[in-house]
Amino acid sequence: MTSQWEEFYVTHSTPADYEENKKKINDFCRNVSAERKIVLVTSGGTAIPLEHNTVRFVDNFSAGTRGSASAEYFLEMNYAVIFIYRLKSLEPFVRHFMGQEFLDMLDVRKEGDVTSVVVKNDCVSSVLPVLTRYKSAKEAGHLLCISFTSLSEYLWLLRAACECLASFGSRALLYLAAAVSDFYIPSNQMPVHKMQSEAGAPTISLQLVPKMLEPLVNLWVPHAYVVSFKLETDEGLLISKARGALAKYKHKMVIANILHTRKHRVVLVMPTTSSEIVLSSEEMEAGIEIESKIVAVLVKRHDFFRVEPI
Amino acid sequence: MTSQWEEFYVTHSTPADYEENKKKINDFCRNVSAERKIVLVTSGGTAIPLEHNTVRFVDNFSAGTRGSASAEYFLEMNYAVIFIYRLKSLEPFVRHFMGQEFLDMLDVRKEGDVTSVVVKNDCVSSVLPVLTRYKSAKEAGHLLCISFTSLSEYLWLLRAACECLASFGSRALLYLAAAVSDFYIPSNQMPVHKMQSEAGAPTISLQLVPKMLEPLVNLWVPHAYVVSFKLETDEGLLISKARGALAKYKHKMVIANILHTRKHRVVLVMPTTSSEIVLSSEEMEAGIEIESKIVAVLVKRHDFFRVEPI
Repeated sequence: MTSQWEEFYVTHSTPADYEENKKKINDFCRNVSAERKIVLVTSGGTAIPLEHNTVRFVDNFSAGTRGSASAEYFLEMNYAVIFIYRLKSLEPFVRHFMGQEFLDMLDVRKEGDVTSVVVKNDCVSSVLPVLTRYKSAKEAGHLLCISFTSLSEYLWLLRAACECLASFGSRALLYLAAAVSDFYIPSNQMPVHKMQSEAGAPTISLQLVPKMLEPLVNLWVPHAYVVSFKLETDEGLLISKARGALAKYKHKMVIANILHTRKHRVVLVMPTTSSEIVLSSEEMEAGIEIESKIVAVLVKRHDFFRVEPI
Repeated sequence: MTSQWEEFYVTHSTPADYEENKKKINDFCRNVSAERKIVLVTSGGTAIPLEHNTVRFVDNFSAGTRGSASAEYFLEMNYAVIFIYRLKSLEPFVRHFMGQEFLDMLDVRKEGDVTSVVVKNDCVSSVLPVLTRYKSAKEAGHLLCISFTSLSEYLWLLRAACECLASFGSRALLYLAAAVSDFYIPSNQMPVHKMQSEAGAPTISLQLVPKMLEPLVNLWVPHAYVVSFKLETDEGLLISKARGALAKYKHKMVIANILHTRKHRVVLVMPTTSSEIVLSSEEMEAGIEIESKIVAVLVKRHDFFRVEPI
């Protein structure tokens, strides 16, 4: 019998840029040196099209802050990073300069006949460290960024990345921070054209997305250290849902967080223990990001796991 | 009896930053000189929250290309521009430099003890004209950008802008390019917490959003030149729906376009005539944007309307 997750890949054809992206992932992985650890960071929300000619879609709230910040800290900890992110969500390094901020930092300078464009003096101290880290990661070939938009594109990329990561065994860490939709409309139940408002207000019937964590943990990357995320709005459900996921999928950790406090508090839930990471208000004022602490703990756990896999 | 549009503003409270944004719009309008025309450009899609503690929402496909490009061309035609856009959708000028492109353009330069960050020589020719136009618009106070996320935030901003624009009479043009949702879940019918997948796949019942074009044309800015947009995926419906909207709302023009051809073909539908704008493949290769042609026609129509209002 075909399982639900297999059924998904059978009924949803590969995205147009799938082969190209798969090649990028393969090439990237081949160039990671033998002593370096590797992490797959997924980030941002997945779009669920409501029509084949998509005008409308259901989306998940996610700016990509957690994923893009974490990717930077994994690079600092000498990981090779595959960053799979929702198009237009935050990207590592770039996230520090949004929209008009970038143009506002630039000045035109004329010296004789030569016109140049320079970053204003008072912005250099904020741009320089980020730019230096970005260039260093890029030149060393330690960062690969690939974008998706729809749920289906995300799930195809996830499997392609896992196929490459499998060969890294326990050197691979999966940090699944993307806000993946629980619900979708299967391809064969979607209308072709834009829904018309003259037809009255529609009712949208969603179906459950197969839980890909199950084949991922058991079949795709059985030796990797897999971390998933749980976002809730109701504190009462948080830890029990995280424990439920661990019991069901048998992975290593669930990072549990509440929508309104997620920037300064997370709970790392493991099969037998849990630990909380909280930023103090002094730390927040000093611009410390909670992702730096999450990644520091994870790197230790990952190293420990490699010595004593459980 | 309260109309549906009034009911919306009664049941959806003002967004947190409403007063601040209203003040920005007022201040901007007060500084527009007496001979200058003014345009409100709306851009990007509106998010429809599915939960009060919003994790999921329904969205409209729109990168904001039409609106952000048009805003630049209106500035070139000496309009003052209020640009109301979906957060993270494209912004005028900034749209030319996305994501990593920006960091890739920068170089670190060391001269003695002084470290500076400069735009690479081979990027100056593409950055300089955009930067010059951006700085000029900003310094002259001709461009105001304000962002929204949800449908409700958009509708509150739209009305606030119209309240200011009314005093401009026929000098005001409204270019309503935002992809506003036809459907939503009223605040009082929304669940508080994130929907749980354990409860099975949900059915989402949407309601029709009141058509704000009606009070906008008739009550809010009765003397302005109002242009709305119609995006369809089915060519057969396009012109009839555009004509239907003009007959119903009595505004001046509907710009009709098909999802897959919208970058090189639009139809300007007016009460008694219509005209098509098509980019040739040579024009597209030369980097000409269809918005430059749309805006050129609109500016003429607006001027003509001011002499002979109909």
